[in-house]
Amino acid sequence: MNYPEKIIISEVGPRDGLQSIDTIMSTEHKLEWIRSEFEAGITEIEVGSFVPKSILPQMADAYEVVRKAKKIDGLTVVALVPNFIGAKNAIEAGADKICLPLSVSETHSKANLNKTHDQVLDEIRNIALYLSEIEGEKPDFEGNLSTAFGCTLEGAVSESIVLRLGSRMMELGCQEIGLSDTTGYANPMQIKKMIRSLKKEVGNENLNSVHLHNTRGLGLANVLAAMEEGITTIDSSLGGIGGCPFAPGASGNIVTEDLVFMLDSMGIETGVDINALLAVTEKVQSFIPNESVYGFTKDSGLPKGYSKGWGI
Amino acid sequence: MNYPEKIIISEVGPRDGLQSIDTIMSTEHKLEWIRSEFEAGITEIEVGSFVPKSILPQMADAYEVVRKAKKIDGLTVVALVPNFIGAKNAIEAGADKICLPLSVSETHSKANLNKTHDQVLDEIRNIALYLSEIEGEKPDFEGNLSTAFGCTLEGAVSESIVLRLGSRMMELGCQEIGLSDTTGYANPMQIKKMIRSLKKEVGNENLNSVHLHNTRGLGLANVLAAMEEGITTIDSSLGGIGGCPFAPGASGNIVTEDLVFMLDSMGIETGVDINALLAVTEKVQSFIPNESVYGFTKDSGLPKGYSKGWGI
Repeated sequence: MNYPEKIIISEVGPRDGLQSIDTIMSTEHKLEWIRSEFEAGITEIEVGSFVPKSILPQMADAYEVVRKAKKIDGLTVVALVPNFIGAKNAIEAGADKICLPLSVSETHSKANLNKTHDQVLDEIRNIALYLSEIEGEKPDFEGNLSTAFGCTLEGAVSESIVLRLGSRMMELGCQEIGLSDTTGYANPMQIKKMIRSLKKEVGNENLNSVHLHNTRGLGLANVLAAMEEGITTIDSSLGGIGGCPFAPGASGNIVTEDLVFMLDSMGIETGVDINALLAVTEKVQSFIPNESVYGFTKDSGLPKGYSKGWGI
Repeated sequence: MNYPEKIIISEVGPRDGLQSIDTIMSTEHKLEWIRSEFEAGITEIEVGSFVPKSILPQMADAYEVVRKAKKIDGLTVVALVPNFIGAKNAIEAGADKICLPLSVSETHSKANLNKTHDQVLDEIRNIALYLSEIEGEKPDFEGNLSTAFGCTLEGAVSESIVLRLGSRMMELGCQEIGLSDTTGYANPMQIKKMIRSLKKEVGNENLNSVHLHNTRGLGLANVLAAMEEGITTIDSSLGGIGGCPFAPGASGNIVTEDLVFMLDSMGIETGVDINALLAVTEKVQSFIPNESVYGFTKDSGLPKGYSKGWGI
């Protein structure tokens, strides 16, 4: 039973969740969410996206959120950056890690970032150069392959393009690659096959994280498949808030609470106190009373007499 | 990537689904459901439960449903039987397979069947004896270990009791054993561990099927784990209808459509035409307009340009 002993859950709700709902959460509430979830044991949180306010007003305070979240000792503060300018701001704010999404579907790339593959790769080159000139502390730089398992606009994507773009991002200076099922199209076989191929292409140690959606209910099965291929960082969203507003019908992040329940019950170390986490969900729901908050575990409750490594 | 080439999906909606909703479906509608789903490619269907009408009026026509479903050439007609009398009726009606649930949690057994373990084992002994005296065609007899991964009333159950009861059912004359996560408590590690242990106990070829619930969202991840341990028959319910009315909070069968999507997209043979199946869901929903019908794949639709073995 080849599962990692420990998984890092990378909470993306304050970014992927909040960017796709109408309600704009206040900076104070975002920080209270981040702080509470960190206290429940989540050590990596994607706290915002450095896109123009005109595109995503929900993310207008990304700079301030990063700067203040950085004061939480022990938290890895992640920021999504769509381009060089966004990266520069995220670095200045003090992000520990910046992620730039490159959509394998060029049609989606144009819709999402308004850029061709070459234009996105140019941004990556510029960011990597900029980072190389910084002395002292600087963030990790992850290149993220979005729509890597299919696209709502283009349909199937070719594995060879995924490999080529992953390889190119590493050459241009990314420290690691992430794989995103932006559209909720992936299945466990495809997940395994893609991770194996991409690890061969970019190096085993340079592909550690996946971002999966639960659009067709396969989210946690895909997590299982990914863990069997050695993935150790899994993205998820508290209360399943969010999705990708630019890929129609592709809502539905993996629910953090359900992911924690699965891993915790399997005896895999997450560092998270699931009861404390469920209390954070209630708090966050109170911040956005008009938005839907999902979760099987939240709805059904924990098993009677539940404890970590249940039944193993 | 050790998955079976072919999976038998055993539809339990007409039994497990309908027994837990208030609406009583007419015999004609049940048969139309069964026929349509068979035409969509499902070859095994649990069509009813031979319990007293006073307990489950939704199942009052089980005899007639079995008798008429038997006329569908190629369909394996399964019936749930709680005791010797039920089994006798199901055999007379012509069921191809009868399943008797033995709850690993004795508290649940008393609540569900109003019987202790020993009393249920006595019924099994009597059924097996009765079957052994029938000459010619007779049904397979499966003993099903329900609440095998935990119980809403007792909490954790001990693996040693699961193994002992499984072994005892085989000794008494069951042809095979099934494992049921009646309460939606199981996790993939527990599934794998339990299947390995039980296969050792009852023989590799005598444990082929699992009945899993999606109560905490882990249903399909548990299916994946079960397939990795060689399980080849998976129960599920069309539209996720149903659950167990005697295990509070334990509703939520695996949704047949989502299961088919997962297997089909992985390139595993199910024999099911997923578009035809989704049309059956619509038909069944029209039979029970006041009941909830679930499904991620139904709600989101198939991926753009989808075909079997997508992306592999």
